Amino acid sequence: MISKAQIKFIRSLDQKKFRRKHLLFIAEGAKVAHEILISPLKVYKIYATAQWLTENKLIYSHKTDVEVEEVSREDLEKISGFTTPQEVLLLVSIPEISGTPEIKDQIALAVESIRDPGNLGTMIRICDWYGMHQLFCSDDCADAYNPKTIQASMGSIARVEVVYTDLKELIRNNSGHITYAATLDGALDAHHLENEGPVLLIIGNEAHGISSELLSCVTDTIRIPRFGQAESLNASIAAAVLVDNLVRNSER
Amino acid sequence: MISKAQIKFIRSLDQKKFRRKHLLFIAEGAKVAHEILISPLKVYKIYATAQWLTENKLIYSHKTDVEVEEVSREDLEKISGFTTPQEVLLLVSIPEISGTPEIKDQIALAVESIRDPGNLGTMIRICDWYGMHQLFCSDDCADAYNPKTIQASMGSIARVEVVYTDLKELIRNNSGHITYAATLDGALDAHHLENEGPVLLIIGNEAHGISSELLSCVTDTIRIPRFGQAESLNASIAAAVLVDNLVRNSER
Repeated sequence: MISKAQIKFIRSLDQKKFRRKHLLFIAEGAKVAHEILISPLKVYKIYATAQWLTENKLIYSHKTDVEVEEVSREDLEKISGFTTPQEVLLLVSIPEISGTPEIKDQIALAVESIRDPGNLGTMIRICDWYGMHQLFCSDDCADAYNPKTIQASMGSIARVEVVYTDLKELIRNNSGHITYAATLDGALDAHHLENEGPVLLIIGNEAHGISSELLSCVTDTIRIPRFGQAESLNASIAAAVLVDNLVRNSER
Repeated sequence: MISKAQIKFIRSLDQKKFRRKHLLFIAEGAKVAHEILISPLKVYKIYATAQWLTENKLIYSHKTDVEVEEVSREDLEKISGFTTPQEVLLLVSIPEISGTPEIKDQIALAVESIRDPGNLGTMIRICDWYGMHQLFCSDDCADAYNPKTIQASMGSIARVEVVYTDLKELIRNNSGHITYAATLDGALDAHHLENEGPVLLIIGNEAHGISSELLSCVTDTIRIPRFGQAESLNASIAAAVLVDNLVRNSER
């Protein structure tokens, strides 16, 4: 039986200020739990049904210092943020990242002022698909540890480091990467790029695109060629198409 | 002042059965309204604030047989499905499509069993961006006239014809197009395609992909090359990346 205090504590982690205070985030569902448990992320606590605990012993038993609590489906319903509660809920430590951020990948993605947690989660999943180990975010982006972001990332949060940082500084400190800002009227056509080596791609806010301040720091602007009349593409769609083009380009 | 009966009638159009009964759908917001009013779609009624009506006279005055009703912001709040009601709401006729569907574009998109109205709307927007005039849907897809689909399409519903049809028949009747089914382990790598001429791309259900029945009818399977560990990509992300690769390929 989960106490009221526990329920209150877990649900408080829906809010960023409490996540930051306790340095914990919630991850729900078998798929996301599995990805996190096999990753280096530090798991603080597992709440799960007896069935899940039996079936997944091999996956969580190697984790050290993790508290495991068997709970009923009714209890999971009380602590879940989902409309259909899952069989497992984890409390996971938010990794602390310090020092000046360094870009590890040949092709990297940075996002400015992305507000929608679902979009951010989708971009984390895109990074993971294309083998990118980091996603750089301006400080005013949605929180990577928001339950909606975790859900949309489909477990990719376990493999992609989300680095909140000043993007202008990031560009300055990583001059080995040329920087492309995605804009609707970008100078470069993503379908016809030269093969240029390390690239940092920047995607801007859903409604307003990239700030003029940041635009003034980039090497060039890049566009997805448009053949019809839609005014724009969704930010995470644009990120996927541009990353795919950069990767495809680097294969030649 | 909008009557209770009118409010009830408008809100009933949130449900597919009433949309099909009256052959009407709801379109809200200045952006979507604008796109629809400049398109050939038949608008049955405009509910809007005095300010919107004054500022947009040129856009709606050429439409014949449209009823215009000036309403207060309070009234719009009563008929809106949005949490933040917009200044304009249209009732639009659902276009009737008859006869055997014929693929008009060199590169075309079909989707099987897409359940999420947001995903469907995003795919309509993708079609519009790449200049595709049709989107083919299996009959069990989400409804293109669901308010969430209309919203996610960002007005592109005004330019893309959404054709509900039997996809196996569509393939049979359009043998001039080769058909590619998007799968995680597709035989063809989207980054390394030959230049093949007319293509129909098929994207499957969000969770289960393409049915084996439909798979048995296609020319080949196609994959987005994966470099990392994410298990999959979101269906609309996959649609965008594959369409972009097919278009890029046809440019060579």
